[in-house]
Amino acid sequence: MHLFNPRMTFALIGTLLAIVAAMMLLAVGVAVYYGEDWQSLLLSSGITLAVGALLYLPNLKNSNRDVRKRDGFLIVTLGWVAMSMLGSLPFALTGAIDNIVDAIFETVSGFTTTGATILTDIEGQAKSILFWRSMTHWIGGMGIIVLTVAILPLLGVGGMQLFIAESPGITPDKLHPRITGTAKRLWFIYFALTAAEAIALWVAGMGWFDAINHAMATMATGGFSTKNASIAAFNSPAIHYIITIFMFLAGVNFTLLYFGFSGRIKQLRQNEEFRVYAWNTLIFSGVVALVLIIFQSYSIEEGIRGGFFTVISIMTSTGFVTENYLLWPNFLIFLVFVLFFSGGSTGSTAGGIKVMRHIIMIKNSFLELKRQIHPNAIIPVRFNDRAVPQNITNTVAAFVLIWLTVFFAGSFVMSMFGLDFMSAVGSVTATLGNIGPGLGSVGPVDNFAHIPAGGKLFLSFLMLLGRLEMFTVLILFMPYFWQRR
Amino acid sequence: MHLFNPRMTFALIGTLLAIVAAMMLLAVGVAVYYGEDWQSLLLSSGITLAVGALLYLPNLKNSNRDVRKRDGFLIVTLGWVAMSMLGSLPFALTGAIDNIVDAIFETVSGFTTTGATILTDIEGQAKSILFWRSMTHWIGGMGIIVLTVAILPLLGVGGMQLFIAESPGITPDKLHPRITGTAKRLWFIYFALTAAEAIALWVAGMGWFDAINHAMATMATGGFSTKNASIAAFNSPAIHYIITIFMFLAGVNFTLLYFGFSGRIKQLRQNEEFRVYAWNTLIFSGVVALVLIIFQSYSIEEGIRGGFFTVISIMTSTGFVTENYLLWPNFLIFLVFVLFFSGGSTGSTAGGIKVMRHIIMIKNSFLELKRQIHPNAIIPVRFNDRAVPQNITNTVAAFVLIWLTVFFAGSFVMSMFGLDFMSAVGSVTATLGNIGPGLGSVGPVDNFAHIPAGGKLFLSFLMLLGRLEMFTVLILFMPYFWQRR
Ligand SMILES: [K+]
Ligand SMILES: [K+]
Repeated sequence: MHLFNPRMTFALIGTLLAIVAAMMLLAVGVAVYYGEDWQSLLLSSGITLAVGALLYLPNLKNSNRDVRKRDGFLIVTLGWVAMSMLGSLPFALTGAIDNIVDAIFETVSGFTTTGATILTDIEGQAKSILFWRSMTHWIGGMGIIVLTVAILPLLGVGGMQLFIAESPGITPDKLHPRITGTAKRLWFIYFALTAAEAIALWVAGMGWFDAINHAMATMATGGFSTKNASIAAFNSPAIHYIITIFMFLAGVNFTLLYFGFSGRIKQLRQNEEFRVYAWNTLIFSGVVALVLIIFQSYSIEEGIRGGFFTVISIMTSTGFVTENYLLWPNFLIFLVFVLFFSGGSTGSTAGGIKVMRHIIMIKNSFLELKRQIHPNAIIPVRFNDRAVPQNITNTVAAFVLIWLTVFFAGSFVMSMFGLDFMSAVGSVTATLGNIGPGLGSVGPVDNFAHIPAGGKLFLSFLMLLGRLEMFTVLILFMPYFWQRR
Repeated sequence: MHLFNPRMTFALIGTLLAIVAAMMLLAVGVAVYYGEDWQSLLLSSGITLAVGALLYLPNLKNSNRDVRKRDGFLIVTLGWVAMSMLGSLPFALTGAIDNIVDAIFETVSGFTTTGATILTDIEGQAKSILFWRSMTHWIGGMGIIVLTVAILPLLGVGGMQLFIAESPGITPDKLHPRITGTAKRLWFIYFALTAAEAIALWVAGMGWFDAINHAMATMATGGFSTKNASIAAFNSPAIHYIITIFMFLAGVNFTLLYFGFSGRIKQLRQNEEFRVYAWNTLIFSGVVALVLIIFQSYSIEEGIRGGFFTVISIMTSTGFVTENYLLWPNFLIFLVFVLFFSGGSTGSTAGGIKVMRHIIMIKNSFLELKRQIHPNAIIPVRFNDRAVPQNITNTVAAFVLIWLTVFFAGSFVMSMFGLDFMSAVGSVTATLGNIGPGLGSVGPVDNFAHIPAGGKLFLSFLMLLGRLEMFTVLILFMPYFWQRR
């Protein structure tokens, strides 16, 4: 028996690239419509399809369709890398981005739904390029949904087994193609919400092109905008409120959204992660709103709008901007920084550490104090009214500690690229948490163009690391991953 | 059966205060010798003794000598608080510090061996006051030795059971008075090293008063100096090297030092925590030295001296200063910041997270990746060639996560007192890690005088929290601690 199944790995990545190539055709359509350089985009699609075919066709006749855990880790990581490499072709071939590192950074930022950009003049770009840029978010979001409902729970990554109550408790070593029923239902929700938001934004006065782009970027919790000033460019409270609501929805577990829309509100209300997520966004938004109204002379409406928009944008790791929070008082800046470590719900398109892990870690810490007094009692963490097995608690703890270790080590690396303390810390949390805007010189009204090429590649790596829940990528660097025992 | 034994708790704290009162008499001696205000110091000693007697005498005839776990947590926390309250009398009654919050901050900083100071002109203080200030460090260090060898392992706090291999594996619910043999041997080492350092410093040209003070502050990993410029005031490489060596020793597990000095070098060499501690200090010091020599135009000798002194001062949480590291390049400042999270060895007088916990967490993270591939295998962390029980790994993980949570939340609190990002972060790590100097406005050439009173009290709380290994203090805030079940 072989340790790996490279033929299936290549065939699946080939399939993935074929999907990307098909999506690029939509950008070709946009280019034709606006009379832009459609040839380069068609060439990009052709090359992507060709590479996909080269990976797929030789491995078509495959007697061994067995995809095991190790293959799973490889397929996920290499899949995202391959998408990012070929997805950068439209930027490179049209000349929209004249630097290969920048093109890769922008594409990784797209597919990982991070939304950090190296573009200094977004509005100067062709519409088809902006559309492809939003599209990378939207494809990335679709990928994340498959990943979280079908793949990561089976791989057992970072305690992801927990996130759907209805998933079987024991994870088998084989990857079954569960990417069918559930994923299709959730993709429908994703598609429907994107359409609903686009229509709502159009009704509120946004042009249809901007409406579609921002809807795709919202539902993927991506954050790429078609405007230099992000959402601040739209001087319309209605637009701000609509995006706030859809960002909130994009940060909810899509399985719960499915229950909610099919009338089973009880499922939503009883879900512990949703309750904590909802209360947290409410409380933090309220606090920020109050401070803005009382100390920063915002009107009541502006304070509420700015507070809710900013807090929800960061907590869901979307990264849209209406306010330059770096101009706020010190403690509000620090609060924003702490929210960088939040992340949305598991099973959503949001990045970051995520609410479920915070709940389990906080409960475990309190229980650990209790265990000091009752050392012989077995006191498990309870989540959604079930006892969490000790090994999952341990996995979640390891996940959070690895996340924080990468945060510290990554910030050190970025400081070696010359970034000051706050920018180093900000650039790492913004990319590792797939948020987008950070602090200091990569703040909400800045971009990542000024970072040295090495730093951009490093941050691209962090975006992948964060998006694929750390373990999926890190495990490939372990010697034993490649050995039989 | 009662839940608590308040009579024994009061009696033991009374005994502790009697010891503090006796130590204050040494400061009275210094005051008489230098012709300073000995009356106020004698009064301080008298009041402390009186309070101690009031706590001790009514509880002298105590039929129930049973001290249990819950009493243990109370005695340790209340003991440190009582010492700090009454230990501030010399500062308050002599008028050396005219503000009660400042006096408490300085005394907590002393007894917790933190070394953060609110004094703006240290050299303008009476010698007897400086002596008492150093004395608080030295008493604190003695307390820490008892705590770590005798009390915390029995309480099971933060995985401290692990730190001595020869300690019994199972911790009984009763606190036995083990504060005898081991503690006395370790106190002897502590005393002998303090004397040796004082003599070495005197030989190197330091006045005997400064030599004794700095020796006490070094062995406690405290960091209070008798000079405004800390160790930079002594323009003598020999003095810098001597202090570097003794800071390194103070960061080693005292049980291992005992083995080392009694010729059992093998025990030292085989100890995993010691090996990692020694290599880490060597590597980080070497890196800093190289950077200072190559990029900062230090001479080779100055670079080595500055690198080793600064890295060892921070990693052992001593906090003596010869270099203003805030003037170094960005990435060296960030490296210093990361070292704030190190801490010395368990069983030393050093504060912080500590090397043992880092080893266990790093190993557990790597093994957790391995467990993803082999979900059914039981793969324990191995430390000092023994398997670490899962519950201890879990305790250590909870400890580190609580530490980091307090770091983030504490920094937010300090930013609410108006501190900028770097100062907020720096003030919290410096106090929670019992280091002393921080970053920003509480950097190595600054002090804590400018922080608002509320902030000073909060940082005092963090010093206690860090020094008493978090759990000991936090557990008192849990409702169930005070309930039967
Ligand atoms: K984002
Ligand atoms: K210290």
